[in-house]
Order: sequence, then C-alpha cells, then structure tokens
Amino acid sequence: MTLQVKKFGGSSVATPEKIRHIAERILASKQPTDRIVVVVSAMGDSTDDLMALAKQCTHKAYGRELDMLLTTGEQVSIALLAMTFIELGQPAISFTGQQAGIQTSRSYGKGRILDINPERVFTALNEGNIVIVAGFQGLADNGDMVTLGRGGSDTTAVALAGALQADVCEIFTDVDGVYTADPRVVPQAFKMKEITYGEMLEMARLGAGVMQPRAVEMGSRYRVPIHVRSTFTETEGTMIQEEYNMEGKQAAIRGVAHDTNVAKVTVLGVDNRPGVAHMIFSYLAKANIDVDMIVQSIRESDDSKTDIVFTIAESDFPQAQEVLEVFKRDHGIKDILYATDVAKVSVVGAGMLGTPGVAADMFGAFADGNINIQIISTSEISISCLIDERDAEKAVALIHARFLESTDAAQ
Amino acid sequence: MTLQVKKFGGSSVATPEKIRHIAERILASKQPTDRIVVVVSAMGDSTDDLMALAKQCTHKAYGRELDMLLTTGEQVSIALLAMTFIELGQPAISFTGQQAGIQTSRSYGKGRILDINPERVFTALNEGNIVIVAGFQGLADNGDMVTLGRGGSDTTAVALAGALQADVCEIFTDVDGVYTADPRVVPQAFKMKEITYGEMLEMARLGAGVMQPRAVEMGSRYRVPIHVRSTFTETEGTMIQEEYNMEGKQAAIRGVAHDTNVAKVTVLGVDNRPGVAHMIFSYLAKANIDVDMIVQSIRESDDSKTDIVFTIAESDFPQAQEVLEVFKRDHGIKDILYATDVAKVSVVGAGMLGTPGVAADMFGAFADGNINIQIISTSEISISCLIDERDAEKAVALIHARFLESTDAAQ
Repeated sequence: MTLQVKKFGGSSVATPEKIRHIAERILASKQPTDRIVVVVSAMGDSTDDLMALAKQCTHKAYGRELDMLLTTGEQVSIALLAMTFIELGQPAISFTGQQAGIQTSRSYGKGRILDINPERVFTALNEGNIVIVAGFQGLADNGDMVTLGRGGSDTTAVALAGALQADVCEIFTDVDGVYTADPRVVPQAFKMKEITYGEMLEMARLGAGVMQPRAVEMGSRYRVPIHVRSTFTETEGTMIQEEYNMEGKQAAIRGVAHDTNVAKVTVLGVDNRPGVAHMIFSYLAKANIDVDMIVQSIRESDDSKTDIVFTIAESDFPQAQEVLEVFKRDHGIKDILYATDVAKVSVVGAGMLGTPGVAADMFGAFADGNINIQIISTSEISISCLIDERDAEKAVALIHARFLESTDAAQ
Repeated sequence: MTLQVKKFGGSSVATPEKIRHIAERILASKQPTDRIVVVVSAMGDSTDDLMALAKQCTHKAYGRELDMLLTTGEQVSIALLAMTFIELGQPAISFTGQQAGIQTSRSYGKGRILDINPERVFTALNEGNIVIVAGFQGLADNGDMVTLGRGGSDTTAVALAGALQADVCEIFTDVDGVYTADPRVVPQAFKMKEITYGEMLEMARLGAGVMQPRAVEMGSRYRVPIHVRSTFTETEGTMIQEEYNMEGKQAAIRGVAHDTNVAKVTVLGVDNRPGVAHMIFSYLAKANIDVDMIVQSIRESDDSKTDIVFTIAESDFPQAQEVLEVFKRDHGIKDILYATDVAKVSVVGAGMLGTPGVAADMFGAFADGNINIQIISTSEISISCLIDERDAEKAVALIHARFLESTDAAQ
C-alpha cells in the first residue's frame, strides 16, 4: 500500500479524450490498496484564453481579480477528471485548492503555500476515492483565491505530497526526465537517473524548465522523492531526492541551465553611500519583484557616485519599469537603462566544491566562442554568466561539450 | 442614498464589450452615495459549453462534479466585470457565492439558499466598492459548491437583496417586463406595470419564463421590491411587490402562462390501499424530483387497483424514468406509461377568488378550440389544464383573447 501524488500538466488534460487517457493510465497501474491523489493544471491553453479575455477588459491584467479568473481553469479540469473516473467505475472526488486545505500568502499571482490542512483529502482517500486536486491555487487568510504563479501545479503536488507524507510525488510531463541540458539546444544532452534536491533546485532556479524551483524546495523541505517522468511512455524518468544511490557522485558538473527570461537594469549615478541599494530593492520588493544577479561598481573618476546593475525576470519587466521610474523621480536618479536581450547560462553541480578550476573552464568555453560575459554570479554549487541572448545556445553547447560529453560523465 | 442589487443574465455579459456596456450603464445611473451590488450569470453560452464538455466525459452529467464545473462560469464573469469597473476607475471587487456568504442545501444542481451571511459584502460596500457576486451558486455545509438550478442567478440577487435589506432588486433581462402572456405566442399580450408576489409566483411556477419561482418567493419572504426591466432600454419594466399601487385590482385574471417542459407519467395497476401513492412519490423525492399535477382514478371494473397519473418537469424525465423503473421492479407494478408531448396552460389572478365562472370560461375557450383536457388542477389564484403540446399556443391565444383583450383589462 502506497500513497502517491501524481501531477499532470495542461497538455495532458487538454481534451476529454486526453483526460480519459490519463484516467485509464492511472487505473491501469493502481494496486487495489494504493491511495492516489492527482493534481492537475488547467486544460491545454485555457489559462492563456482566460488571460486574453482579461486583457480585453483591462490593461492591468494582474492582481486579485485575475486570480479569481484564472483559478477557474483548474476547477474545470478537476471536475472533468473526477467525472471521467466515476464514469470508469472508480469513485473519485475533486477539490479546489481551498477544499484541499491549501493556505497561501496574499500575493496574488505569485502566492506561496504557507500551510496545508489535508484533513478532507485524507477522509476522501479513506473512503476509497481517487482525490483530484486543483493545482496552482490556494486560499489566503482573507478568503481570497490566490494563484501560485508559473508552474504552481508542481508546487501544489509536492507540497501536498509532503503534507500527506506520500511515498512519492510523480510529475508527469512532456519530457521523460531531467536532462543535462535542454535537449532542443544540445542534442548530446542525456537524461539523469537521479539528481539531488540541491542540484535540481539550482538547475530549476537557473532556467531548466522541467521543474519549478519552489516545487523542488518543497520536496527538499518535506523529503518527498520526486519522480519526473513522461506522460506518454512508461519509461523511468529522473528521481529527485536527498542523496545519490548510484551515479553522479564523481562528476563535478551535473548539468547546464540557461534562461532567456531575463532583463538587465542599470541604475546610473546613484549616491555611493550605505542604504542606497537597499532603497532601490525595497521599491521592487514592495511590488513583489525578485532581483537576481546584482553588481555594484565604483566609478574610478568619481567615487561619490556608483552604478548598480541587476537582473530580474523578463516577465516582471513591465511592472518593474513602472516602479523604477517612480524611484527615479523620487530620488533624482540620473538615468536607468533597460535591456531584455540578455540570457543567463549556468553550470550546476555539488561536485564543483571539490573540483578546482570549474570557473576557469567555464570562462574558457565562453572565450572559445568569442562570447562576452556581462555579469558573473556564483553559489556554492553553481556558476552563472549573463551574456547576450543571441549567444545563449552556442554557449550552452560549448559548455556541455566541455563538461559533460567526456566518457566519464556520460552514462 | 440607496442600496441596489442589480442582476444581469448571461446574454448581458456574453463578451468583454457587453460587460463594458453594462458597467458603463451602471456607472451612468449611479449617484455618488448609492451602494451597488451586481449579480451576474455566466457569459453567454458558457454554461452550455461546460455542459457539453461534461457530456464528453460521462453520460451521467449531474451531481457534485457538475456543480464543481458549472460554478466556474459565473466566476469568470464576475472577475471580468470587476476588472472592467476598475479599468473605468470605479473600485470594485468580485465574490463567489461562497465569499458572499451564500449558504445552500446539499442538493447538487438544485440547491436552495438556506441563509446568507453578507458581512464581507457589507464591508466591501462600505469601503466604496461596487460588489459583484456570482449568481447561481453557494456553499453547502460540507464545503461543496452547489448550483441553484435554472435561473438561480435571479434567486441569488433577490435573496442577497433581502439579506442586505436593499431598497430594490433590479432584474435586467431580454424582455422589458412581465407580460400578460408570452408575446411571442400572443402578439396582443401587454406589459403589466405591477404584479403581486403571489400572482408572479404563480405565473413563474406555471411557466412564465421571465422570473424563477424561487426568486419571487425570496422577494415575497423578505419584502424586496423586484423591478423586472430591459437590459437594452431605460423604459420602466414591471414592479413585483406586495400590493398594487394602481391598476390590476379589478381584473379577475392577470395573465396566461404555459409550460411545455412537462412530462406525464401514468402508473397502471397500483394496489388501491393507503400508502401506495406515498411510496411512488418517495422514490421521486429521494431523487430530488418534484411532482406537479396528480390524479388518482379508481377503475370501475376492479376497485382493488388504481391508476396514478402525475406530471414532472420534462428536464427531470430521464432521471425520473430510471427511478420509476426501479420502483416498478421492486413493487411488481404492471406498467408505467410516459408522455412528453404535453403542455400545461394556466390562468392566474388573485381576482378570480371573487369572480365566479372563471373555470367555466376557461374550459369554454378550450371547447371553442376543440382542445381535449387531460388533467385539471387548481390553486387559490390559478387554474391549470394539461393538454396536448401541439394545442398549447392555440389555447393560450384563445384564453388571452377571452379574459384579457376586453377594453377593461387592457391598459
């Protein structure tokens, strides 16, 4: 007897036929005593369709009312999946995020799961139901529905698996696992059998689209093994877990990630005194905008002024620009420059801690490609470089070849 | 300063353009101190679209999961209307039935409003918002979303107006008021300026589609004046209220209603002993199916057996048939006959109490049209006849001519 949480994305539930297909697949592999929770996203493009409707009503398509609108998408797919199970003779019940006890912060559009009270889910499981939960949503303490932001259904699934102390959380997706790099960019990229939470978190944070960082973080916090696998085949995918069982211990670098959803902001002529950087980033924090890479440079000619360069998600760019223009007026800033034609390329691997020269090797690969590095940032298990967006794919291929295509690394 | 509840149906919010149109209309007539609650249905055909999706997943498209699905329809339209008000500079907030404090019974698909706790609506009104509430839905005590059945948005609006002690509940609709008969059937039908709750309830119950009976009942219970008026013009419509101000006191008959959503069931050869009728109707009650006209006849040749004839809504017919076939097997019933080609034609008017001969006049009209009457039933303020569906429109025209086209009745 196991308790499994299975998450299916929008493309897996795009039509009633596809919904029936995944219901049949789940039933085919279900042992009689298995208890199963299914988390689903909205059908196919329905979230985009709702966004398009919103944009016809207002040019400020975000906030409370957008979440009110978007949460309907998952509510449709959970109801249809529950009906399909019932039609197939399997008792099933659907729950909205609220009904599943998912409590979030009040940050509309990017809510964080604060707590889960899965009592109703447990009761329904014990009554013999397959329980279907709407991904991507929860309830804030003011009674409002809040969406979790991009890829939020993964977060729902993993957090729910944690709260239910599930044996495994399976993330069914278009790809059959986590690759050493995006296989569309690097044909030589290969699927990893396993990866640690820490490395996966870093890969996800740095742009590997297969999993959302917050979902991996949840998995790490609650020690839920996450199995990333294909919706279309029975092949084993990639297991994300605490420690390696077999492979991977020897490799310095586990994967190459890249992210083109990046915008660069340069704030020119800021007073070079304590608290200035804090002030800029307070404006962004109030608007719920995350800042990623940050560089502060001192001008040789005039050390009373400094320039601050940082990156944000390109999707936050329009809102960030609004906020920053207010900051500029409020504080008499000389100028703020914006660039969206940048990309971040990163190497990830816990092994780099014991392997000198990884950074040097990485910069060497950029040099080989004649690629200029604009910003460098590092964490314990990753090194990232901001470069011109046009060079991104070339850079990924060069780095993958250098670090991962030796016979040692490839399986 | 007034508190107004305004209800708009699906065709009024079918597109973002129409949503903007009603938002502008509401703002144009709003006095600065007016407090306004808007109740809306799902956009255009979206409820039908959702039903069609459900039918692709299961042939049993009803119950808890269907309500989970259908409640998304109104959630979409409230969000879009709130966005539109905000875009126009008017603070607004949308509430699901649950958020508006609407508590219903657990009867999925035909929930009854048990109570309303409008605290959050009051708070939002006092903060200067136009409050937009999803019609047609509420929350049962088990935490499930429940729809109120056909025309449930009217019920939401009137019940909310009652709970808020609103000055008026305006029902905006495709027609410009309540007519003495369906104007598509009787071109001579005329709009009433006013009608009492009791008469309107009877008209609605007997098939006048403009208002749902339960909505009128709510209005009567909470003494909320209901103004039925056109979405498209500024013309005054029909006021539904406790007493007449001006007209209508003298007329015996106020209107003619007809209903083709009727099915007739004949249960043949039932034991003629106490409790048998109770048993049949218990089977239907358990399935939440209302029975309307009932006739029990004794056979001259064999008084140990009886036949029971009754009518139900044609929309309940498939489910009723399922239930009744079980009853037939359980109790060795000889046969059950079903007919859906029937219609009910009724005259309504509180004045018939003091006017002898209304029934005779009505049957005279049927005789003139050579129309056979299958069942007759009466209430204090109405007389109804079940006839062949093909004769329904002719019957309505004949009765309207006889009772309402004299110079006395017409305004």
